[in-house]
Amino acid sequence: MRLALDMASKAKGQTEINPVVGCVVVKEGRIVGLGAHLKRGEGHAEVHALQMAGREAEGATVYVTLEPCSHYGRTPPCCERIIEAKASRVVVACLDPNPKVAGRGVARLRESGIEVGVGLLEKESLAMNEAFNKYITTGLPFITLKTAMTLDGKIAAKTGDSRYVSGSEARERVHTMRHQHSGIMIGVETALADNPELTTRLSVPGLHPVRIVVDSQLRLPPDSRLLLDASAPVILLTTEGASQDKRAALEAKGASVIACGPGPRVDLAYGMKKLGERELGSVLLEGGGRLNGSMLELGLVDKIVLFIAPKLIGGQSPEAFTFGGFDRMADAVPLRHMTTEQIGDDLCVSGYPVYATVQTEQTGG
Amino acid sequence: MRLALDMASKAKGQTEINPVVGCVVVKEGRIVGLGAHLKRGEGHAEVHALQMAGREAEGATVYVTLEPCSHYGRTPPCCERIIEAKASRVVVACLDPNPKVAGRGVARLRESGIEVGVGLLEKESLAMNEAFNKYITTGLPFITLKTAMTLDGKIAAKTGDSRYVSGSEARERVHTMRHQHSGIMIGVETALADNPELTTRLSVPGLHPVRIVVDSQLRLPPDSRLLLDASAPVILLTTEGASQDKRAALEAKGASVIACGPGPRVDLAYGMKKLGERELGSVLLEGGGRLNGSMLELGLVDKIVLFIAPKLIGGQSPEAFTFGGFDRMADAVPLRHMTTEQIGDDLCVSGYPVYATVQTEQTGG
Repeated sequence: MRLALDMASKAKGQTEINPVVGCVVVKEGRIVGLGAHLKRGEGHAEVHALQMAGREAEGATVYVTLEPCSHYGRTPPCCERIIEAKASRVVVACLDPNPKVAGRGVARLRESGIEVGVGLLEKESLAMNEAFNKYITTGLPFITLKTAMTLDGKIAAKTGDSRYVSGSEARERVHTMRHQHSGIMIGVETALADNPELTTRLSVPGLHPVRIVVDSQLRLPPDSRLLLDASAPVILLTTEGASQDKRAALEAKGASVIACGPGPRVDLAYGMKKLGERELGSVLLEGGGRLNGSMLELGLVDKIVLFIAPKLIGGQSPEAFTFGGFDRMADAVPLRHMTTEQIGDDLCVSGYPVYATVQTEQTGG
Repeated sequence: MRLALDMASKAKGQTEINPVVGCVVVKEGRIVGLGAHLKRGEGHAEVHALQMAGREAEGATVYVTLEPCSHYGRTPPCCERIIEAKASRVVVACLDPNPKVAGRGVARLRESGIEVGVGLLEKESLAMNEAFNKYITTGLPFITLKTAMTLDGKIAAKTGDSRYVSGSEARERVHTMRHQHSGIMIGVETALADNPELTTRLSVPGLHPVRIVVDSQLRLPPDSRLLLDASAPVILLTTEGASQDKRAALEAKGASVIACGPGPRVDLAYGMKKLGERELGSVLLEGGGRLNGSMLELGLVDKIVLFIAPKLIGGQSPEAFTFGGFDRMADAVPLRHMTTEQIGDDLCVSGYPVYATVQTEQTGG
């Protein structure tokens, strides 16, 4: 199962809204088949692994990181393929949260006389598909807020200079994260200040996420690098109050413009819903501070990844999170499951914000 | 040597300006003597260990974390004691930076025919006495800045509420740090806001550091808890411009008042010199943000220890470091030798600030 998870994790970012899945077929102590789901619409992990196993699959144990599907989607159900191959046992890391599956796959296998175990390395498998798990159950993208900041919480010097906050290893890691997300989102302030391309730049070719700019008044210039670079679509989230002329000019350059509410500010919750409808299952939020703060305040951020550089910049410098804040320390937004990792000279801290309203619902329920 | 270091480290905080030292005497594969320097003016580590070893010390190897002293201080030189005990070999972790010793101890031992090795676990031994090493060579206290902050760099909510930023394990650790320092320093703003006692509160009895308040205009009320609590002396660093009446009132309550320059702000570099003259070898700086920022800006902070709580408070909240800051990200004060440790739910990040002027001197020299 560990190997199946490893294979699956390597495919992160290349299956669009599909989950990553790995599968290993074992017979009499030998691995006879290996597979992973590599691209949406193409073979599932089980299909590849059973194909490799061939006739050896009969009587074998199939280890798979996600419950095999039981419904006809873009490909036929994997359950039927497993039954047909006459495997005698299936071990599943976690059930598929997809309401179309959700236990039906396991039930179908058991019905046909196959022994099924569930829960081996479940936590790891769930974490690997955390974006899929949210998207498939809510239709909303999983939002990962990423920022690079100094130890005193600043993303730039007081002059705005930000080259560079973190070291080269951390910056490389960010590009891997871009590769693994279907969208990348910034505020128009950042777009105007840095004129970024927001592409994935790695030493090996990577996938480019859809680029999203939150721009209530459509201030993004039609000649910005984002629009000149055609490596991925550009979506602008704006308001109904934005100029129609500007909209037309930006659309002429290939941008998709989505009006989110009457304004003056972009209705971000509505924007996220629209991104989900466009099948963006995961979005990397790369700030600046105001957009980060607004998304956090609205409870729209699912995960936070901070690259903390071991330095102090001081001054009235731009902060990583700009929002109204709380009156009492006890009301601060906590991060659960915090993990830390040293990346080059920097520290990478990540965790999942817990919002008060959610807590209330849980305790009230 | 590892055992000698362990014994020494446990005595941290109880030897005043003396270094902590551990010693293990080994003969024919057996430990025959153990010792540590426990209190200034009393026996050194070697003396205790050789005493325990008795006649077994003859022909033994003496492991000691710091070069044995060669001069007559409050106690006779340890070198002579080792020679007298007829040890055949001495292994020293590091040379004594004290200019009165600085290699003379090792030379004296070798002169008398004893084999001497230097450098075993040297880095660990130097780190253990980092405060002593600075004090003995410069006469200035080693300053450790400690602060508890949120992930967004705030030490309180926008209302000033700060109960609590970090968890109980981190707060307990701070009390251990207080025990290990000869002084603890805050700004008058913190003294007025929190009215703290600044004592060491641990589940076992600890030592109380001298309490130092930076108070340019002597605004500290004579009935503040600091002055009512007699567990350790109180020193006020002020300016020549402070009211003589207030000074008299505070002195009547037992405070020592030191005028540091004409004002309006306290000359902190001068203040540190005065604390050194009073034999304070190590000072724990516990903020607030303005005093932290000023000390950092002046290059007076030797070490920074941050307890980072996994939460975001937002708002215009008090920051851990308030200072003018730098125009360029490349000019930010870096921390070298950064280490991280998980303490309860909090993250403890520590390192040593590197100041641009020091770098220039080094590269220029």
